Amino acid sequence: MDLASLETPCLVLDKGKVARNIKRLDRRMAKLGAAMRPHGKTAKNIDIMRPALAGQPGGITVSTLKEAEYYFENGINDIVYAVGIAPVKLPRVIRLIREGADIAVLLDSVAQAGFVADKARQHGVTIPALIEIDSDGHRAGVAPGDPLLVEIGRLLNESEHVVLRGVLTHAGGSYDCKTGDEIRAMAEQERAMAVKCAGQLRENGLPCPVVSVGSTPTSHFARDLSGVSEVRAGVYIFHDLVMAGLGVCDLNDIALSVLTAVIGHQREKGWVIIDAGFTALSKDRGTASQAVDQGYGLVCDLNGEPCTDLIVAVTNQEHGIIQARGGEPLDVQRFPVGSMVRILPNHACATAGMHERYYVVDGATAVTDVWERVNGW
Amino acid sequence: MDLASLETPCLVLDKGKVARNIKRLDRRMAKLGAAMRPHGKTAKNIDIMRPALAGQPGGITVSTLKEAEYYFENGINDIVYAVGIAPVKLPRVIRLIREGADIAVLLDSVAQAGFVADKARQHGVTIPALIEIDSDGHRAGVAPGDPLLVEIGRLLNESEHVVLRGVLTHAGGSYDCKTGDEIRAMAEQERAMAVKCAGQLRENGLPCPVVSVGSTPTSHFARDLSGVSEVRAGVYIFHDLVMAGLGVCDLNDIALSVLTAVIGHQREKGWVIIDAGFTALSKDRGTASQAVDQGYGLVCDLNGEPCTDLIVAVTNQEHGIIQARGGEPLDVQRFPVGSMVRILPNHACATAGMHERYYVVDGATAVTDVWERVNGW
Repeated sequence: MDLASLETPCLVLDKGKVARNIKRLDRRMAKLGAAMRPHGKTAKNIDIMRPALAGQPGGITVSTLKEAEYYFENGINDIVYAVGIAPVKLPRVIRLIREGADIAVLLDSVAQAGFVADKARQHGVTIPALIEIDSDGHRAGVAPGDPLLVEIGRLLNESEHVVLRGVLTHAGGSYDCKTGDEIRAMAEQERAMAVKCAGQLRENGLPCPVVSVGSTPTSHFARDLSGVSEVRAGVYIFHDLVMAGLGVCDLNDIALSVLTAVIGHQREKGWVIIDAGFTALSKDRGTASQAVDQGYGLVCDLNGEPCTDLIVAVTNQEHGIIQARGGEPLDVQRFPVGSMVRILPNHACATAGMHERYYVVDGATAVTDVWERVNGW
Repeated sequence: MDLASLETPCLVLDKGKVARNIKRLDRRMAKLGAAMRPHGKTAKNIDIMRPALAGQPGGITVSTLKEAEYYFENGINDIVYAVGIAPVKLPRVIRLIREGADIAVLLDSVAQAGFVADKARQHGVTIPALIEIDSDGHRAGVAPGDPLLVEIGRLLNESEHVVLRGVLTHAGGSYDCKTGDEIRAMAEQERAMAVKCAGQLRENGLPCPVVSVGSTPTSHFARDLSGVSEVRAGVYIFHDLVMAGLGVCDLNDIALSVLTAVIGHQREKGWVIIDAGFTALSKDRGTASQAVDQGYGLVCDLNGEPCTDLIVAVTNQEHGIIQARGGEPLDVQRFPVGSMVRILPNHACATAGMHERYYVVDGATAVTDVWERVNGW
């Protein structure tokens, strides 16, 4: 099977690039003395996660309970569910624990500590919990220095049915950095805040074995990870245009693309119409705020070589419009109707999330494997 | 089963609103003497499409061959595949025709006319074809007045294995209109351009029984549909915030919402964190260019009553952040951790596309049905 024979649109993954991306961050982490707990939310597939887990302690991070169940069924026992817990999610967490999974929940409020402890007691199980720290002001978590941290820690520690594992933070704000120095500073802030909060718990006689940090940008720029017990990242396995724009990777490191067929031209305008719309590419515009706006994705030829002057400028449900970056008319004869191109994604998680499976290649256009994704909840 | 017991995030559909939305446009079309060929791309479910097809000639529009196969298996024979045809898609079209489907393909180039005729001859089938007209300059199609129209028409008509059905256009530019008058003008332009092109074919001795137009905005604002044989629309079944912003519907007409649980607060900032991120809401920002920017969606209570001051301002993969529209801190105690809200979508097609099924209600919060969607290609 060759890419040219596939029905479009579909998702293409270059496994050679995946292997290189994983090795690169693993080597960095080894030098810094940090262990990886790779995030399974980008790949949502065990064949992709196995090499990311190899040589590491073996634990995984997930963003949904469907991922947790899937990775557990595939032999991964040590799981962090890194989204704040809701009561409606606890029955499945408890079922996983009963089946032998070591799955930790995340929380940042007294209310959550209360219902987690209550449900664990009612069901006679022990639930491990991590307290989320807000290291960059971008989303959830307890602010460092807030006495709430110790209050939650005590509540968890007092419950016979909860194990206080430690603290977790994610410097998602690193996606908005403009320079390597800014990301480096963000990485140090992420580390320092998490370590400070761990200290706050320990000073109050509370256990904090886990100090979990991570994002793809900060893990690639961190210079020091002392006090950190594990680093989480997910996008690094595929990389994407946002990461390239941040200087985290090169265009040639991006392992993921969408294969699409040319279905029309507007010759006078110099537009090429393709059958990859927002259902194939996602509506993500993550590069819109970066120095180089990549529209809805950067065009490559069938072999994956970037045409750096061409982007997908418009998406509708099943249509995309390729235009020259500067808006000048492109010679549509370069892309005859029926020919195929590949589109590099702004955000790998968002684009991969639009597809049910990967068509796997290794450099060339021969399809070596088809790997399914575990989407949904 | 009640909404409050469902695992979040999930998609909620109010079938009473669906029925009213369908009736409203059907009545309009009946007054204007036009038949509907509803678009199955928004609903992607036969239970939703049946009432939209009832009382109409019975034909459907689709955006993928997976939809075509699904609706055909569910008894819909007359299908227009309204996305420009690529060679790689023809085997499935031909299979459907062999199984008895009347499926028409769409094209706007000599190249497509050529490979459609060739493949039809090779496989000994007859493929019906429509020529796409560009009535508003927004995407694909032959420009009215371009001699290419007659050239393509002749090529199709000369082939013994193709039936030239007529012309089709979609005034997608109507989504960018600012006033009702602009949409009305766009509707007349859509009609006039399609009718003009049909005349161009007929003057050249070519058949053009079908003159197909439509979009949800133009179908709700058109005052005259003379010369039109069928109107296509899809979003009208659900409506959404973009349609409300255009004045096509009221907020209370929106039948689709995403049920989500509160998983945290940032009290000092007045933020409420929910478990609906871009995997549940999509990254669509269709209201960003409208008078009222609804962020990633408008917050409603569990009963579906809009909280018109509250929007989802930020989305990450599995997190959303609810903020007051003006940025002032909201009283997070209105939404305790574990409570649930519903989010109205910017673009129903995009948000529904993130989910595998609908949890169906009828006004109240009791779930009466669970209907599956046919996503993908």
